[in-house]
Amino acid sequence: MDKDAFVDYEYPDMDPVPTIAQKEVILPCDPTADDKLYHICITAISVVIMVILALLARKTQSANRNKGLASLLSPVNFLDHTQHKGLAVAVFGVLLCKLFGLALSEDPLPFISHTEHKQNWVILGVFYYPALYYPLLACGALHNKVGYVLGSLLSWTHFVVLVWQKIDCPKTPQIYKYFSLFSSFPQIACLAFLSFQYPLMLFKGLQGTEKDNATEDLNSSYYKDYVKEILKKKKTNKISSETRGLLQRILDAVKSYIYTPEDAFRFPLKLAISCVVSFITLYQVALVLIVAVVPTLQTARMGVDTDIANVLAGFKIELSADKNEVVRIVVYYMWCVEVCYISSMTLSALVNLAMLMRSMVLHRSNLKGLYRGDIYTVYNCQRRIRPSRPALVCWMGYTSFTAAHVVAGMSVLIQTLVFFLSLLVAVFLIIIPILHGQNLFLFKALWNMWPFWLMIVLVVLIQHICARFCFIRKTAGTRDLDNRGNLFLLTYVLFPVSILVGVLLAAWRLLITALFNIVHMGRMDISLLNRNVEAFDPAYRCYAHYLKIEVSQSHPVMKAFCGLLLQTGGQDSAAQRPRDAEEGIQLVQKEKKVHKVSSAKRARGRWQLLYTLVNNPALVGTRKHFQRQSADSFVNGSLKKSIKEGSKKETPSKEAEGAASN
Amino acid sequence: MDKDAFVDYEYPDMDPVPTIAQKEVILPCDPTADDKLYHICITAISVVIMVILALLARKTQSANRNKGLASLLSPVNFLDHTQHKGLAVAVFGVLLCKLFGLALSEDPLPFISHTEHKQNWVILGVFYYPALYYPLLACGALHNKVGYVLGSLLSWTHFVVLVWQKIDCPKTPQIYKYFSLFSSFPQIACLAFLSFQYPLMLFKGLQGTEKDNATEDLNSSYYKDYVKEILKKKKTNKISSETRGLLQRILDAVKSYIYTPEDAFRFPLKLAISCVVSFITLYQVALVLIVAVVPTLQTARMGVDTDIANVLAGFKIELSADKNEVVRIVVYYMWCVEVCYISSMTLSALVNLAMLMRSMVLHRSNLKGLYRGDIYTVYNCQRRIRPSRPALVCWMGYTSFTAAHVVAGMSVLIQTLVFFLSLLVAVFLIIIPILHGQNLFLFKALWNMWPFWLMIVLVVLIQHICARFCFIRKTAGTRDLDNRGNLFLLTYVLFPVSILVGVLLAAWRLLITALFNIVHMGRMDISLLNRNVEAFDPAYRCYAHYLKIEVSQSHPVMKAFCGLLLQTGGQDSAAQRPRDAEEGIQLVQKEKKVHKVSSAKRARGRWQLLYTLVNNPALVGTRKHFQRQSADSFVNGSLKKSIKEGSKKETPSKEAEGAASN
Repeated sequence: MDKDAFVDYEYPDMDPVPTIAQKEVILPCDPTADDKLYHICITAISVVIMVILALLARKTQSANRNKGLASLLSPVNFLDHTQHKGLAVAVFGVLLCKLFGLALSEDPLPFISHTEHKQNWVILGVFYYPALYYPLLACGALHNKVGYVLGSLLSWTHFVVLVWQKIDCPKTPQIYKYFSLFSSFPQIACLAFLSFQYPLMLFKGLQGTEKDNATEDLNSSYYKDYVKEILKKKKTNKISSETRGLLQRILDAVKSYIYTPEDAFRFPLKLAISCVVSFITLYQVALVLIVAVVPTLQTARMGVDTDIANVLAGFKIELSADKNEVVRIVVYYMWCVEVCYISSMTLSALVNLAMLMRSMVLHRSNLKGLYRGDIYTVYNCQRRIRPSRPALVCWMGYTSFTAAHVVAGMSVLIQTLVFFLSLLVAVFLIIIPILHGQNLFLFKALWNMWPFWLMIVLVVLIQHICARFCFIRKTAGTRDLDNRGNLFLLTYVLFPVSILVGVLLAAWRLLITALFNIVHMGRMDISLLNRNVEAFDPAYRCYAHYLKIEVSQSHPVMKAFCGLLLQTGGQDSAAQRPRDAEEGIQLVQKEKKVHKVSSAKRARGRWQLLYTLVNNPALVGTRKHFQRQSADSFVNGSLKKSIKEGSKKETPSKEAEGAASN
Repeated sequence: MDKDAFVDYEYPDMDPVPTIAQKEVILPCDPTADDKLYHICITAISVVIMVILALLARKTQSANRNKGLASLLSPVNFLDHTQHKGLAVAVFGVLLCKLFGLALSEDPLPFISHTEHKQNWVILGVFYYPALYYPLLACGALHNKVGYVLGSLLSWTHFVVLVWQKIDCPKTPQIYKYFSLFSSFPQIACLAFLSFQYPLMLFKGLQGTEKDNATEDLNSSYYKDYVKEILKKKKTNKISSETRGLLQRILDAVKSYIYTPEDAFRFPLKLAISCVVSFITLYQVALVLIVAVVPTLQTARMGVDTDIANVLAGFKIELSADKNEVVRIVVYYMWCVEVCYISSMTLSALVNLAMLMRSMVLHRSNLKGLYRGDIYTVYNCQRRIRPSRPALVCWMGYTSFTAAHVVAGMSVLIQTLVFFLSLLVAVFLIIIPILHGQNLFLFKALWNMWPFWLMIVLVVLIQHICARFCFIRKTAGTRDLDNRGNLFLLTYVLFPVSILVGVLLAAWRLLITALFNIVHMGRMDISLLNRNVEAFDPAYRCYAHYLKIEVSQSHPVMKAFCGLLLQTGGQDSAAQRPRDAEEGIQLVQKEKKVHKVSSAKRARGRWQLLYTLVNNPALVGTRKHFQRQSADSFVNGSLKKSIKEGSKKETPSKEAEGAASN
């Protein structure tokens, strides 16, 4: 206290008390595994590996015409439901982490340091990194032991060098001392997964238990299980929504936010990648937001001393006569701000996680609905499910757009800001005043308006009570209006008060609309606009188009059908069994031309075809080109009929399914 | 220039140059027709008129049991489509203008001046004014010559006193000198309409050409015309949306914002009132926003002198070395701000007018859809159209809520603010820099990013071109994917660039969502939320409930049906013809019990009933209580069937209509 008393009488600028904790200075750290050298080496190694793989692919190609270079150039089949998703997801994860580093670091590319035209190098980097990690994908594409060995070696190299660098230099001067370390965790995890997965595949390959991925797709029991599932008679234990209780409804609402896997449904690969990418993006953005603000706030809090009282006095703010008390109050307020910030960050991250889960649930129901042909429910209008130019462009960009909508801070940044401000207002206008019993001006203002609130509540109550007991007459199970005269009179008399109620409603509308849109900004699977103008929301438009491609190209029933036909063909000539799974339909066509199948088999095939088509009218378009006659008549018949009826709604094929299952 | 040079060396505070135009001082004005005295007199007159009317009503009641006091207590039938809407609309307009005065004036009630508890008097005023203007409505309710004379006298009194007051005191100290005058224009217009309408009705009554309003409703040809219109065979000249050209689509979009009256459709009274109330509200809010800001800005602009250079220098802003030049620039900038403000106000008002027109178009299509039974299209889910407690409360408040959503400034205020800020940004960052060729930093920043924009444009172009020419194969009228391998490769390689594109899309999404919601904030007939959570938007929920009551209670086909039955009954006993139109159904029931109609007539009636019900299943509920047996079996049959099918969609009764008309 003596010192404080002494400081009190001194001019603050003359003797700045050096109580501010000395900030830790972090020197730039050069890891033993120099990044420049490492990238030159690994690029060379990758090129060599790609050459080896290409040679290997040529060799394989001569033995098996369906494999080889083509599969090396497209190691991921994004339209396959059954393949092992791990490799692709991990590589996309590694790539995404690198891109974050690219955006935040000083030197976008490791080859060039401290350049002037950073922007141009970023553009180069955007194409360099996908090429760098490409061999990690390609090694698994040939389903070959050499490929697995090379893949293991490459992923180990990436993994070991990254871990080595991080152990060497855990602290970097960038943003926060451990930021670089924390930021690389998802990358390390993905590389660790790859380093583990490749040896596992090699081991399985040596044991011979590995299934051939290409034929696995159509022969997989998944599609058959799916068909069995939809043909199964459903238990009609659904109670209509009106008879359910409130608790049941709340439970249902909560359940719709929790994704529980189903046996007879697997996610398309692109959706799986999108989910992981969203999760990593969320982690990275939240990390940046935390490390950029919280350490600064803490340093500032530690550095508060009695000078602050003089500074505040300069702004004519006097918190207390005692300077120590002022310091205590300021530190307390800063702590409150910090808590608000971290809470809003956490809240925002949790909300985004919940949205991610909800997205997955909705994806599943949308996909199942479209498989069923229930286009109207999903799109709210009639659309043709077939590939088109915009649909394809949207399909290509879907994963990136998902990430962008989370990353761009549009979601997390805005959410955090809004939650932060709301929490600040709540804490400083409501909680602190209540705790300390002072500055209750908000409550006083509301309290002074009590006649107003009383009037509003009374009028609304009167309206409800009158509506319930005077104006509605229940006779023999129906409801009708009663006492019309009094109803009209009350309507006229309460016109002015209703305007006041309406103002409150309008404020509530503003609040709920803003909150809903902010919370759902990161979700592409719902439109933020009104149902009639949904298509103007670019994110939802992209999602709708993406679904089109996904459904038209990898319909499980179509795949089950193709698998069935291939098996039928395979009974005749198992040796010539087609191996290129994703071109199933085209192969079926060729097969048909080559082999003269017996009439019984043809009949069986036709029956299967018809059965599938009746249950899935959306498939008709895809087969039109090889059975043009029947398809034309089918399409013309049904389409013309629906146009003639002038009805915008599609007859739900759900009913057809239900009828078939009875 | 000498003076400026002199001022330059002076301390600005020492000699404030008195160039600021002397502000016109407006003294409080007491009109010859003192407001206090006038209100006391007019209240007394109104009470006297109501007593006379009540006595008159008792006399009428003894002569005609269906009229009398009841019709005096509910002078407006809000559920009638055919009655003359003028009286009710004008009275609501007068009331609304008074409420604006109540909210803005210092003395909420004319009896009390400069009170402390203003709030409580406002609450009293909210109930006083509806009572004050009630006789204006009630005078027309009895359809009696004495009523019309009293109504004429009362409306003339109101009109003359108001005009006299405004001529006496055109300038008031409130906000802006002419604000009070401008603000009373809608009120004067409404009162003038009433002063003209009552003598006209009296004249018609004397000539005997006035139709009896009560019987007019059901006997009106409107309902029959409506039924004829829907039974007419429609020309199927509609071209499907895919074949229409772009120009045609734009024309259609523009047309959907222009309301053109249709012969076979009239607005419900409540909607008509809502539209007029919205329009007056728009006028009043725009007036307040203009007169509160523009005169102040103009005064400030006039008062700018060379002192401003010193003030700006204090903030380290130096616009020019020459002080006259500084004044010129500052005046120019302030003029820009003024222009921006007036433009944004005008834009906001025009947008709201367009929204009002669009609302009317949508109201009509929604009502027609619901009359047709097309519930799913309007509500996006299955609902029962029948009166319920929340529906009735929403119906009562609908008009007020419409006004509130425009008035509360939620619409005009926010829109004006947003448009104003956007225009300011546009003017000061884009237009002025281009005009003067300086401060082009926004353009420079964008120009420096050209490699980035080039990359984005190229990548998007490549995606579209590849999708069009490489990846989609058109065979025999169908489209299928081609070159899947390359498609997957391109998807992987462009993953990082797509993230950048996605960020732009996310920004666009944010912008378009905010803009859409701000523009449509004042419209209750669309939800601002996503289609699955529409019900959480309080304004839309209110509108949906309002429509329920409107449709269930004043279905034109039902009314035509009731009219037809009454005519059939009337052929037997024209003297006992029931006169109370809105209780048609109940009367039909009584009529049926009293008269033993011949079997041919009964058959005819039944056939009409069945025909109506088949075309309008929504009507079934309303008649269940007097033909319980058949109704029960009908309802049970159809409802159980639809529940059993597990389909959420209603079979559109449009089809049934179409089938019936064939």
